[in-house]
Amino acid sequence: MELLNKHVSIRNFSDKVVDPDLLKSIIYSGTRASTTGNMQLYSVIITKDSKRKEKLLPLHFNQPVAKNAPVLLTFVADFNRFSKWCLFNEAQPGYNNLISFTNALIDTSLAAQNVCVAAENNGLGICYLGTTAYNAKEHIELLELPQLTFPVTTVALGYPEERPELTDRIPLKGIIHDEVYKDYDKAQIDELYAFKESLESSNKFVAENNKQTLAQVFTDVRYKKDDNEFFSEKMMNTLRDQEFFV
Amino acid sequence: MELLNKHVSIRNFSDKVVDPDLLKSIIYSGTRASTTGNMQLYSVIITKDSKRKEKLLPLHFNQPVAKNAPVLLTFVADFNRFSKWCLFNEAQPGYNNLISFTNALIDTSLAAQNVCVAAENNGLGICYLGTTAYNAKEHIELLELPQLTFPVTTVALGYPEERPELTDRIPLKGIIHDEVYKDYDKAQIDELYAFKESLESSNKFVAENNKQTLAQVFTDVRYKKDDNEFFSEKMMNTLRDQEFFV
Repeated sequence: MELLNKHVSIRNFSDKVVDPDLLKSIIYSGTRASTTGNMQLYSVIITKDSKRKEKLLPLHFNQPVAKNAPVLLTFVADFNRFSKWCLFNEAQPGYNNLISFTNALIDTSLAAQNVCVAAENNGLGICYLGTTAYNAKEHIELLELPQLTFPVTTVALGYPEERPELTDRIPLKGIIHDEVYKDYDKAQIDELYAFKESLESSNKFVAENNKQTLAQVFTDVRYKKDDNEFFSEKMMNTLRDQEFFV
Repeated sequence: MELLNKHVSIRNFSDKVVDPDLLKSIIYSGTRASTTGNMQLYSVIITKDSKRKEKLLPLHFNQPVAKNAPVLLTFVADFNRFSKWCLFNEAQPGYNNLISFTNALIDTSLAAQNVCVAAENNGLGICYLGTTAYNAKEHIELLELPQLTFPVTTVALGYPEERPELTDRIPLKGIIHDEVYKDYDKAQIDELYAFKESLESSNKFVAENNKQTLAQVFTDVRYKKDDNEFFSEKMMNTLRDQEFFV
């Protein structure tokens, strides 16, 4: 499918305004994605206000795209709305737990991806900001998110002012397993990652960071154990504050 | 977008075989979805073998669709492959923690949704089985999943032998929040859920289960607090067994 297969993340946008009705229509397409028990365990916060974008910028680790995009959509796992419906209808909700949070996280992600496909189908460009969950606590304050909600991911959106090249992926056989998972030995890993490691951009990454291997750029620079542990503890505390874990 | 907006879950499939090359091509479209740091934190297990489907059936709480579908795709959050690449390249992975699991869960869900869109675009029908995470432990045994992997969701897939009606969704204004989250009062909740509550199928659900309200069907029958707590503890133990939490 051409549209899906040509997806690239867009980080530079033109000044063209995104029509509010178009925005609603692509979010509607998001709500047509499958959802657990048809509970629709998500909300979408639209950010257009430039002052609020300024405040969100550091929460996205100052990625310029968070400020450049005319629209930010923060996708929020939401058991608040559903639980309120229960409480107003003589029903006792019991959704402050891990499996319910997981269901909401999946629902939210499926809706977000449908929104991205619909956006691109309408000529818009998108970029996921995976930073949202890292700074969930600050998003909750800034976007006034109530308990039993959790910001999962943000999609930056607008009309593209660039046409980046398709990014690399490992060969499909590295993803697919027939019937049972076939674990990888060194030769297979070498083969799967050979193309990625051969890219000029990869070699530049390695050189710039004074590393020996591309994998070290990930473990020592981009996704470090210490950082992962810091943000994991922070996320767990936020989930407790949000009453997802009691 | 017509394709997204007309999505319905398919639970009855014809005998028509899904061409293996078509299957690969739709999974390829899954891999074109955005992914955290281009790490592609997922694997896909293809189940076609009828004996294995028989064994998976109870893990999906005996939903007939799990057996009827010619193909099951189990989408697995996977930090095993990436961590192996690190270990084989003198890099120390540090991904046994909540934020890494969350990144993998989101990556996996985005890929799954792209696969579903690509499948439907090729005339196939799909149904998500949200039961996978509930019985992750048993999936791990049956599909031989290694540590640092976790089965997130399953997509049942084949050529449709039914044309169900579009399911209801709450009005879009119930999902969207401008700039900040606007919490819901009783009048708003009543309005958002009025259509769902008015459906004949909803009233049948309420009557069949001897309940007073539709919300009680969710809290007392379909998604019960006790069950949620049981499966949450099970999931947490499985995440520990899989070394996602140390």
